[in-house]
Amino acid sequence: MLSINLEPRSKIPMYEQIYHYIKSEIKEGKLPCNYKLPSTRNLASHLQVSRNTVDMAYSQLVSEGYIEAVPKSGYYVAMVSELTILSAKQAKIIKPSAKSKKTYRYDFSPFAIDINTFPYNTWRKLSRNCMNEHNNDLFLLGDNRGDESLRAAIGQYLHESRGVNCSDDQIIVGAGADYLLQLLSQLFHHIKPQTRIAMENPTYKQAYRIFTGLNHTVIPIQLDQSGICMEPLYQSSADVAYVTPSHQYPLGIVMPIKRRMELLVWAEKAPDRYIIEDDHDSEFRYKGKPIPSLQGIDSSGKVIYLGTFSRAIAPAIRVGYMVLPKSLMDLYNQYLSYYSSTVSRVDQYILTHFITDGYFERHLNKLRKFYKAKHDALVQSLKIFQNKVTIEGENAGLHLVLRFKTRATEKELIQAAADKSVKIYGLSQHYITKPETFQPPSILLGYANVGEKDIPDGIQALYHCLESYL
Amino acid sequence: MLSINLEPRSKIPMYEQIYHYIKSEIKEGKLPCNYKLPSTRNLASHLQVSRNTVDMAYSQLVSEGYIEAVPKSGYYVAMVSELTILSAKQAKIIKPSAKSKKTYRYDFSPFAIDINTFPYNTWRKLSRNCMNEHNNDLFLLGDNRGDESLRAAIGQYLHESRGVNCSDDQIIVGAGADYLLQLLSQLFHHIKPQTRIAMENPTYKQAYRIFTGLNHTVIPIQLDQSGICMEPLYQSSADVAYVTPSHQYPLGIVMPIKRRMELLVWAEKAPDRYIIEDDHDSEFRYKGKPIPSLQGIDSSGKVIYLGTFSRAIAPAIRVGYMVLPKSLMDLYNQYLSYYSSTVSRVDQYILTHFITDGYFERHLNKLRKFYKAKHDALVQSLKIFQNKVTIEGENAGLHLVLRFKTRATEKELIQAAADKSVKIYGLSQHYITKPETFQPPSILLGYANVGEKDIPDGIQALYHCLESYL
Repeated sequence: MLSINLEPRSKIPMYEQIYHYIKSEIKEGKLPCNYKLPSTRNLASHLQVSRNTVDMAYSQLVSEGYIEAVPKSGYYVAMVSELTILSAKQAKIIKPSAKSKKTYRYDFSPFAIDINTFPYNTWRKLSRNCMNEHNNDLFLLGDNRGDESLRAAIGQYLHESRGVNCSDDQIIVGAGADYLLQLLSQLFHHIKPQTRIAMENPTYKQAYRIFTGLNHTVIPIQLDQSGICMEPLYQSSADVAYVTPSHQYPLGIVMPIKRRMELLVWAEKAPDRYIIEDDHDSEFRYKGKPIPSLQGIDSSGKVIYLGTFSRAIAPAIRVGYMVLPKSLMDLYNQYLSYYSSTVSRVDQYILTHFITDGYFERHLNKLRKFYKAKHDALVQSLKIFQNKVTIEGENAGLHLVLRFKTRATEKELIQAAADKSVKIYGLSQHYITKPETFQPPSILLGYANVGEKDIPDGIQALYHCLESYL
Repeated sequence: MLSINLEPRSKIPMYEQIYHYIKSEIKEGKLPCNYKLPSTRNLASHLQVSRNTVDMAYSQLVSEGYIEAVPKSGYYVAMVSELTILSAKQAKIIKPSAKSKKTYRYDFSPFAIDINTFPYNTWRKLSRNCMNEHNNDLFLLGDNRGDESLRAAIGQYLHESRGVNCSDDQIIVGAGADYLLQLLSQLFHHIKPQTRIAMENPTYKQAYRIFTGLNHTVIPIQLDQSGICMEPLYQSSADVAYVTPSHQYPLGIVMPIKRRMELLVWAEKAPDRYIIEDDHDSEFRYKGKPIPSLQGIDSSGKVIYLGTFSRAIAPAIRVGYMVLPKSLMDLYNQYLSYYSSTVSRVDQYILTHFITDGYFERHLNKLRKFYKAKHDALVQSLKIFQNKVTIEGENAGLHLVLRFKTRATEKELIQAAADKSVKIYGLSQHYITKPETFQPPSILLGYANVGEKDIPDGIQALYHCLESYL
């Protein structure tokens, strides 16, 4: 008979104690295969528990396959072929390279935003409104492309502020630009298995990683003062061109209308050629009006328009959108529409109201003013460098490019600044392949997350770090 | 001189009116290429506006590339090669096939949940707490794998309730199971370009669509009463086996310990073999304890464990998780860790507290009781069918399988029920390939979204629909 030490005062129910005991006896090989267990009646009387308790224990063991019930005979230990059931060892994992936690006095990151601009009170109010509506349906799956009201709000915003022409049915909302680029990469697989994607060099490396990670071939194309060069684009036999026409990332070039038309002509020359217009920071332009989108002048359905709210609101709300031309939307509906939406419906609700109730426009106006003040302070402060640097891409976005007249390398300049606790970011990391022509050492100077009042001191400190190299 | 009809009372600023006029004149070819524009001084005096206004208009046109400034000479219309800039036509899009909006008196959907179970008040309270913390950092990007606190909460829950053994570093949180399956498919590409994935037949078709959509080969494997058959699995030369051991989807088979061990042995026979354990509805088991996970008895790092909160909380919160074995976690860190998280940090915050503050456990207990009552009512009601059906997979999940003794087809039964406004769902749609052996017409009967009190009437109605076929 099984000798189980039952603890009636334990929190663990009696049937579980019996179950655990027998299971471990089987695992350790103490109860061999085909061993006949005592009948439920006998074990119950032996252990002085109810027969139902033993029934529950046996029944769980049957469910998990440790024992088998043979009708009119009883319970037997099952044939378990491999009885070395060990508890899994806690495996050691290589952690992702921990980012250097060094803090800097001044950090001119081009990737940052100023999180203090986040419209906290409005967001909280909309969040509260949403939850107060007691609308259970908000927790059921919605449209896979994003809720209709959100797509309509985005469509109207894009039309009014970016000149984008589309119907709401062409918009797909997703959890950030990375996710949408993955979806797009999958869509391209349905045109041909390996798409040749031409990218500006330098470019947004995250998009490069996603395209190559999803098995597409990327061909880097050099830039001239109008953006992507047409001659090498034609020679590349690319199917898709990924461009940032409003404000080239990272150089800040605005693609003039002539090059835009040339690019559209290129796309029209073959049926499956497309242009991805990544309009990443088009909201921020400090001189004149925002540059209208390329999508808005495309009459042949060649432009895929991509944007996010990461910079205009906050990165962690995880909402981006893409506008597909008709032909690709049909492909999406055919092949990818089964993917559930990646954005929670509460977030969709809040964002919809943020846009349609007018908060977004007011927030953008405030942001533009706020970042323009920083931008102007930065440009003013940079005069200390006199003619030792040239400044590029200065009318838009949240960073500018400094090119130094020096024989020092980019790395030396970054190190010299770091030694004095000033963090600057090299341009070279944004190149897919080393540029063909000589590039002076250059850095991206982001100002979103440096306080307006700290900018003059920060630039002065930077100047003192680099002075001896210039 | 340009004859512009300026409207001083318009909401549109004067400089924009000038800019729009000149831009459209260029687009329509009325101002030819190389046409010299009046100087800013002359145009300003002609239009009786300030020179600054004309400057702004010209400067915007220069930015967009419509005109060029030639130093010491003036402004000229730029060479725009293709001047047929038409406003994009609103393209008509094929809408995704609109789901039949027919409503049924009784809908036994196996995909539904009862949204009235959603813990609305708790969710609202946690949401409010989150926003009241005034923590701006919640709107900055967090860890790409999900916030550490959320991963720790999920890890502990999985360990306690599912016997999963892992460190928090092995957990990746993402916006739903679909997204995680995409990520996993990409991870497999880094082992070999085309992975051979064995799937139970029938199975969860969404996973099938994702694997094949991402270029992997799927081999359907037949089932016996213990789940996936080992012999055909060995013959399939598969690299990966996708299984649902706790509760086979859709048949409800519990994989016994012997088959589990055999499956682990299969995986250990080659270095790059893996098992995906999709533990989709393991929370719901109405007889005995939940079946412990396969991952928990894997000592060789072969099991990828996958789960979501879609059924345990609500589909629209869009949070799933996967636990990767060490070897795959290293690959992830090397190749995919650059993907930003797809879950907003506010949602992560709410979910973390929902789990760690004890709400989740209480919610699950309530849900189990709630669904068990429906389950019992269903099983009781089904007695009307006597021996004309057999019931399978009845101890867990949110649906059971009915197999009919009849010569009628599945389609005929579904149609007969639909004619009387009862919606039932065929089993056959869950097969990847037609089963090799004869299957009696079978349906999945979901009870999550039918009221407990409606179940007897619903089943009686179903019986009357089908009676003449049985």
